[in-house]
Amino acid sequence: MCRFLAYQGEPVFLDTVVSKPCHSLIHQSMRATECKTSTNGDGFGLGWYGERPEPGIYRDLRPAWSDDNLLSICNQVRSPMFFAHVRAATGTATARANCHPFTHGRSLFMHNGQIGGFGKIRRQVEAMIPDELYMHRVGTTDSEAIFLAAMGRGARENAGEAFGSVLGEICAMMRAANINEAMRFAACFTDGETLHAFRWACDEKAPTLYWRPGHSSVQVVSEPLDESHEHWNAVPQGSMLTVRGGQVVELQAFNVTVH
Amino acid sequence: MCRFLAYQGEPVFLDTVVSKPCHSLIHQSMRATECKTSTNGDGFGLGWYGERPEPGIYRDLRPAWSDDNLLSICNQVRSPMFFAHVRAATGTATARANCHPFTHGRSLFMHNGQIGGFGKIRRQVEAMIPDELYMHRVGTTDSEAIFLAAMGRGARENAGEAFGSVLGEICAMMRAANINEAMRFAACFTDGETLHAFRWACDEKAPTLYWRPGHSSVQVVSEPLDESHEHWNAVPQGSMLTVRGGQVVELQAFNVTVH
Amino acid sequence: MCRFLAYQGEPVFLDTVVSKPCHSLIHQSMRATECKTSTNGDGFGLGWYGERPEPGIYRDLRPAWSDDNLLSICNQVRSPMFFAHVRAATGTATARANCHPFTHGRSLFMHNGQIGGFGKIRRQVEAMIPDELYMHRVGTTDSEAIFLAAMGRGARENAGEAFGSVLGEICAMMRAANINEAMRFAACFTDGETLHAFRWACDEKAPTLYWRPGHSSVQVVSEPLDESHEHWNAVPQGSMLTVRGGQVVELQAFNVTVH
Amino acid sequence: MCRFLAYQGEPVFLDTVVSKPCHSLIHQSMRATECKTSTNGDGFGLGWYGERPEPGIYRDLRPAWSDDNLLSICNQVRSPMFFAHVRAATGTATARANCHPFTHGRSLFMHNGQIGGFGKIRRQVEAMIPDELYMHRVGTTDSEAIFLAAMGRGARENAGEAFGSVLGEICAMMRAANINEAMRFAACFTDGETLHAFRWACDEKAPTLYWRPGHSSVQVVSEPLDESHEHWNAVPQGSMLTVRGGQVVELQAFNVTVH
Repeated sequence: MCRFLAYQGEPVFLDTVVSKPCHSLIHQSMRATECKTSTNGDGFGLGWYGERPEPGIYRDLRPAWSDDNLLSICNQVRSPMFFAHVRAATGTATARANCHPFTHGRSLFMHNGQIGGFGKIRRQVEAMIPDELYMHRVGTTDSEAIFLAAMGRGARENAGEAFGSVLGEICAMMRAANINEAMRFAACFTDGETLHAFRWACDEKAPTLYWRPGHSSVQVVSEPLDESHEHWNAVPQGSMLTVRGGQVVELQAFNVTVH
Repeated sequence: MCRFLAYQGEPVFLDTVVSKPCHSLIHQSMRATECKTSTNGDGFGLGWYGERPEPGIYRDLRPAWSDDNLLSICNQVRSPMFFAHVRAATGTATARANCHPFTHGRSLFMHNGQIGGFGKIRRQVEAMIPDELYMHRVGTTDSEAIFLAAMGRGARENAGEAFGSVLGEICAMMRAANINEAMRFAACFTDGETLHAFRWACDEKAPTLYWRPGHSSVQVVSEPLDESHEHWNAVPQGSMLTVRGGQVVELQAFNVTVH
Repeated sequence: MCRFLAYQGEPVFLDTVVSKPCHSLIHQSMRATECKTSTNGDGFGLGWYGERPEPGIYRDLRPAWSDDNLLSICNQVRSPMFFAHVRAATGTATARANCHPFTHGRSLFMHNGQIGGFGKIRRQVEAMIPDELYMHRVGTTDSEAIFLAAMGRGARENAGEAFGSVLGEICAMMRAANINEAMRFAACFTDGETLHAFRWACDEKAPTLYWRPGHSSVQVVSEPLDESHEHWNAVPQGSMLTVRGGQVVELQAFNVTVH
Repeated sequence: MCRFLAYQGEPVFLDTVVSKPCHSLIHQSMRATECKTSTNGDGFGLGWYGERPEPGIYRDLRPAWSDDNLLSICNQVRSPMFFAHVRAATGTATARANCHPFTHGRSLFMHNGQIGGFGKIRRQVEAMIPDELYMHRVGTTDSEAIFLAAMGRGARENAGEAFGSVLGEICAMMRAANINEAMRFAACFTDGETLHAFRWACDEKAPTLYWRPGHSSVQVVSEPLDESHEHWNAVPQGSMLTVRGGQVVELQAFNVTVH
């Protein structure tokens, strides 16, 4: 399990949500409260949009809580859309290449959850990645494979369909391989304009996911950044939240059909 | 706060105590139970004696729980005396040079605790280190400063006196600087032959420290390596345990006189 | 390009060959003389045999020249067979998982060279790795893929045939993919008993490889460890050197048939 | 020896000078041409001014040439003044805390050179740092000590006097300690507004230093960023260059009086 947050709206300094809140993501890296492992110390990552078309990326394998660079970057950078993620590894190595968010072109993706028994079907899952994207696979996680597979299925054009189709196919592979562990998926994806947040699990035990509207911004988080849950809305299981222009524009069903 | 263990006796593979027990030191790096911070993820270190007069040292700033090198070294190395330490930083940087154990010549030292308000009296504490040892100070911790100061006061000849004198002087500095925080000290020191374990605090709230005799070996730990406390003896506050030839040879008062 | 050394024979401390010679492997990490890039600063690795059936492994992504742990381990460990490698990355990330030597069970492998245009045929090369070994692929290098593919073809039983068959098949893939870059291969493999050193390239420009017999030991190196080339014998291109019991037992042709 | 660059003027993306030129600073990290060691692989650092009063800092102990984060940050950040540095360690550890630039409040400092025999007079040099700044010393380099000592002597108000006085005093210490090695100093300092570049050595063998005026900007570098030296002016030995508003406002003598 991991913890993450995504922001879209009025440009703000990253520290506003990443490091300053009392239960900020950096605080959650050592003391998360809504997941099985309270420690998310297996690396971290930032992805943010600035003046360039491609997002900036800062990832490292150290724990987020002790990284001065991370604090400094969050203190300096102001952005209208950014992702931040702290990792608790589930079987793959602690390495920079396995840290979220993942990026390709203008897109960013991050994930909390896992493909149960991934080791057994890894090659099949990777086979879903088109050749021209496969050379961009630099790590070994299930998350990066899902991202690249969905990119190959038009995630930029229709994120819900692309991820739904990828997840459905993986669930079928898991079933065929007699894997009893679940597939769980809380994730954020953006093409640089529209932000999609997903919450789904094949066993209805999806990782927590919340969103909070601001004046002209939306935050999506694994767990609230303060002790009160008052302003935070749970994303229902089996849903996809769509944010554009700093507003939630849609909360719709996220359908994963397992053939 | 940190967690550590020391072993002396029949040569054993390091993994026997460092990684294999159910509540091994590596397990404690993520889930310590007897200290305020359960996470000890700010680096780790090993020091062991082999065929050379000087001990081997392996330290890194990553969390112990995700380091494959550490597992491999513990699996390979067999030693009659070794120290292992997982760090929870108290104010100084997460850096290899700040990881325990510290070494000089044949000696090893590791520490759990802190000098309250160290920043305010750091220069004075460092002034206790003789010039010829000062050039060996490579980090910025209070622990390394205590070690080098005690080395300069004959820790190899009389560990109890050397550390007692250093701690007493530091407590006087703290008092003069109106520091209200406590000085706490659970530590192990060896000259390569005799192992000394200390437990002391100026406010009687010394970090926990246990020892366990084996057939022809002694283990000293911050907290027991298994769930049962049955075979583990608490080192009393204000005491120094002396181990030689795989046997406890003395448990005596550790006197710190503050002038 | 990378630099490596392998030792088999009377147990010696690793520093004897890894760090103490004037042009030791650690020296070569900054100033190699017989390859295009003099800097081999993209990580390093050690693999050594001790009392356990499996070799010990110490790898890191830092340059070898500044790693105190490496010096200490080389100073402590005495072994009858070990591999050491310093890396100059050729397209894949600087990451611990991409550092040599690679290990599986009792075997070790390290490589200097590359599969030209690997990115274009990566998936095909990986398809040569059997399923039960694919889950042990933790990095993204061509070298690790060659190793696991050869393991799947019986490298432990017949190293020459296994590697020859793998390389031949890859060359055919390269040809089919219209890759003009060469495949070059200087490598060492051992099952824990017998050491095989290979030197081959599809364009006859194989990386340098030397061996030197000692009283009861053999060293295999990318470049001599001292300035004199006097005692070092070049392994001819297209050859495989076999070392057992600290003696060269065979120097034979290494045949790679490209279908 | 190290390599560095400083920029002041029209805001530009950092990659314009840090990574894109043919002999960029990142290129120099592996192949510097005007210093004894061509490899500057012992860490790197960036300091830049943005919307906040304090500069942003990104430093790491890896070589600059293999760090994707560095490329991404340089690609994203646009700044009117920034420092970049690649390190070749001269005796102190490869650690993040020893990487340049150093910062305090709004100021930045970076250095190429060394205090000869620093180990012998380290404590004396450190004694020049006022108590209130000493707690900000987090590494062990001579460079950081010079910076903090000069800060204590009013570097923000009169950089030339402050650094001149610090260097003069250190030279006197070196002489008293019978140190024969030289003190060499090429450095940049800024209070966030005015940039000062220094070139001096007690033996007249100061590290190289160049500056180049642009339309409304000035670059100061250890060695030119392209093969031609045409547009680059050597800063004379014993000089201090002052840059304000993207213009060189003064090139004056830098006097170091050794008492």
